[in-house]
Amino acid sequence: MKNWVQIVAGFVSVVVLVVLRAQGVDAVLDARKSDPVVMGWMVGSPPAADKVIRFGDGSFFRFPMTRWAFSNMRQLVPTKVVARSGSASVIHRVERADLDGVMFQPIGGGEAMSWAQSLDANYTDGIVVLHRGRIVYERYFGVLKPEKQHLAFSVTKSYVATLAAMLIAEGVIDEKAVAAKYVPELAGSGFGDATIRQLMDMTTGLNYSENYTDAKSPIWELSRATGLLPRPEGYRGADGNYAYLKSVAKAGGHGEKFVYLTVNTDALGWVVSRVTKKPLAELLRERFWSKLGVEQDAFFEVDSLGVEFAGGGLNLCLRDMARFGEMMRLGGHYRGQQIVAPAVIEDIRKGGNKEKFAGAGYKTLPGASYRSGWWVLHNEHGAYAARGIHGQGIYVDPAAEMVIARFASHPMGGNVNLDPTTLPAYHAVAEHLKRGAR
Amino acid sequence: MKNWVQIVAGFVSVVVLVVLRAQGVDAVLDARKSDPVVMGWMVGSPPAADKVIRFGDGSFFRFPMTRWAFSNMRQLVPTKVVARSGSASVIHRVERADLDGVMFQPIGGGEAMSWAQSLDANYTDGIVVLHRGRIVYERYFGVLKPEKQHLAFSVTKSYVATLAAMLIAEGVIDEKAVAAKYVPELAGSGFGDATIRQLMDMTTGLNYSENYTDAKSPIWELSRATGLLPRPEGYRGADGNYAYLKSVAKAGGHGEKFVYLTVNTDALGWVVSRVTKKPLAELLRERFWSKLGVEQDAFFEVDSLGVEFAGGGLNLCLRDMARFGEMMRLGGHYRGQQIVAPAVIEDIRKGGNKEKFAGAGYKTLPGASYRSGWWVLHNEHGAYAARGIHGQGIYVDPAAEMVIARFASHPMGGNVNLDPTTLPAYHAVAEHLKRGAR
Repeated sequence: MKNWVQIVAGFVSVVVLVVLRAQGVDAVLDARKSDPVVMGWMVGSPPAADKVIRFGDGSFFRFPMTRWAFSNMRQLVPTKVVARSGSASVIHRVERADLDGVMFQPIGGGEAMSWAQSLDANYTDGIVVLHRGRIVYERYFGVLKPEKQHLAFSVTKSYVATLAAMLIAEGVIDEKAVAAKYVPELAGSGFGDATIRQLMDMTTGLNYSENYTDAKSPIWELSRATGLLPRPEGYRGADGNYAYLKSVAKAGGHGEKFVYLTVNTDALGWVVSRVTKKPLAELLRERFWSKLGVEQDAFFEVDSLGVEFAGGGLNLCLRDMARFGEMMRLGGHYRGQQIVAPAVIEDIRKGGNKEKFAGAGYKTLPGASYRSGWWVLHNEHGAYAARGIHGQGIYVDPAAEMVIARFASHPMGGNVNLDPTTLPAYHAVAEHLKRGAR
Repeated sequence: MKNWVQIVAGFVSVVVLVVLRAQGVDAVLDARKSDPVVMGWMVGSPPAADKVIRFGDGSFFRFPMTRWAFSNMRQLVPTKVVARSGSASVIHRVERADLDGVMFQPIGGGEAMSWAQSLDANYTDGIVVLHRGRIVYERYFGVLKPEKQHLAFSVTKSYVATLAAMLIAEGVIDEKAVAAKYVPELAGSGFGDATIRQLMDMTTGLNYSENYTDAKSPIWELSRATGLLPRPEGYRGADGNYAYLKSVAKAGGHGEKFVYLTVNTDALGWVVSRVTKKPLAELLRERFWSKLGVEQDAFFEVDSLGVEFAGGGLNLCLRDMARFGEMMRLGGHYRGQQIVAPAVIEDIRKGGNKEKFAGAGYKTLPGASYRSGWWVLHNEHGAYAARGIHGQGIYVDPAAEMVIARFASHPMGGNVNLDPTTLPAYHAVAEHLKRGAR
């Protein structure tokens, strides 16, 4: 009972913050004040009572404790490794301190802002900018370190859906087949007659809402089922990712609208694991980690059956995330190997259905689309991105030969809060690097 | 309530097995039949209902499920990394298949047995034999692989106590000081007036019993407090390692008897972390992992505060455990660095108080002693060992220039069940290697 109260209190506090923000009241600690090192979380044996962050009471999922927790997920929840092997690929370094002064105009007006200022504005935990494959900028804040894994949230979806796109290109999965063809257990659910492509592009018609400012949103049920949020005593909800997916119902027709729902990628993950007879962690190791020359193991948050949270459970280190982006930028050819078929990446770059996407009303993403787990901006640079709640991201800018990887712990869920000081900042740095100015 | 029933049922089943064994009835699946690959645990998305192993229902801690679980702890419980870095040290390899035929006489009589047969007898998951620093024998069984971490149980104690011995040698900790000097919170507990040396050598006088065949033994309370065993609904016991330690009471005088109790090493871990202001995982990284040229990260099972289970929570890969043993054999000098001071290792090799040890009645260890987390055999080879329940071990044989590291998942807790086919087997292989025969 106590757990419930605390968890609900946490969500309510987020809602309150959103309301305050809307009213122009800024009651949220800024990036400097909420720095987890400054706040002194979890230091000492044991930490002082007011510096403790736990999983069981839900405190890890409340800002500003999130600024510590997102870099320490494995000590909070069970995890499954995506194992590294061999030596790391060398990424050359040509520091460009001049990036700090690059100015941009935030979306929606307001004063011009510098790149350096944007890092604080977005509660950045770590950011790396690659230009022509070389690190030109790399910063870490708070408790994040180069060798440390950070929760990537929905950036996970881009990995899983890219994997699915590869399996489709290889003829292992038919994108036009319905999910129930591969996972008969989904037949009775809303996913049963959705095609694999619809799961990948988020165009299923489900009786579902993913509103992070609504404490009653089913996204929290999913989180409790997968074990990413604590369960109250007497919990009688679904135990596990798969069990939960079976309970998701249909509403309306599939393929009609773009509706971004995490459960789609979870269902996709189930299909991929069932077809390949391999856990997602093993597939990511086989397809990406063993080939990219990563520096560190990655890991997935898992449910009580060891099933990876495909919709948002990957934790990895920043430079390894950048390596994945760079591989995408290079058309899948990286380190002497064709890791992803060029046609798969070409298809992602072309994007999804813009009309359906427009209907979803993403104000900061006019003219964009969503394809195979990637957000395609359709801007003049041909940029596309992996995006996770609270500011995680991979931004690939082909025209500027630039890749940005970022971890963040923004107090509010949803990139709508981050985009105004992110997208124009990324684009300004891209233009700056394109010009070659120093 | 259901949890309780299942957990208690698990322990009762272990007790029943022990009784059956004592009566000459062997109802336990043998090593081949209980091989976790043969049994097919946790294969499939999801696994079949009768192939599922979970943390929450306690099934992971019941034989034969343990044979899978001990190699998969991180997907069952929260963990803290002991990070590798840099490249792994090269261990040369000179295969000695002739070891398989080395014969020995089990303790307590019975037919002579070969080394190869002993591996099955002991439910070995992995074993590596180093001779003069080179791998002469290495085998993996079931789900364990060279790169995979296995729960080391009480081998953890040898790491933690060696660390403490190093800090004593460096003057950071005074072995004669009482625990409450460093951790005032222990003042009211049985540990309060015990010296650091008494914690390290297991000579405290505590009101405690560590009987693995007794379902009511407080060792299970410790396990629930630290999060290594699931808690039943309505659990009102201690939350966390430190909270539990404060509840352990004194009985009799300290320093009088050798009584092997896991809580001693947990208290020692608390002292070490408090004094150094560093978590054990960080200390192990700093002192050992960063210097030994390990191949893999290791990890600790942690409680809800992130406190490492110092008495038995380390998981590591087999060859990395062998590297630690080899470093000990070489007097602490390994890979061009003095990792442990020679005097510290000399003190361990000299052993502890034999009379006090004899009083504890370990039938398979006549003439042995215990010092700083190590079991010292005082045999003609000067062998000493780190020993974990269910058959984990590091065996250092200075005279034979041999180190053996083993992971196992024997159905019964306690090395008394393993020693008869372990200690004489190790000694026979040592003699064999000493002779140089091929």
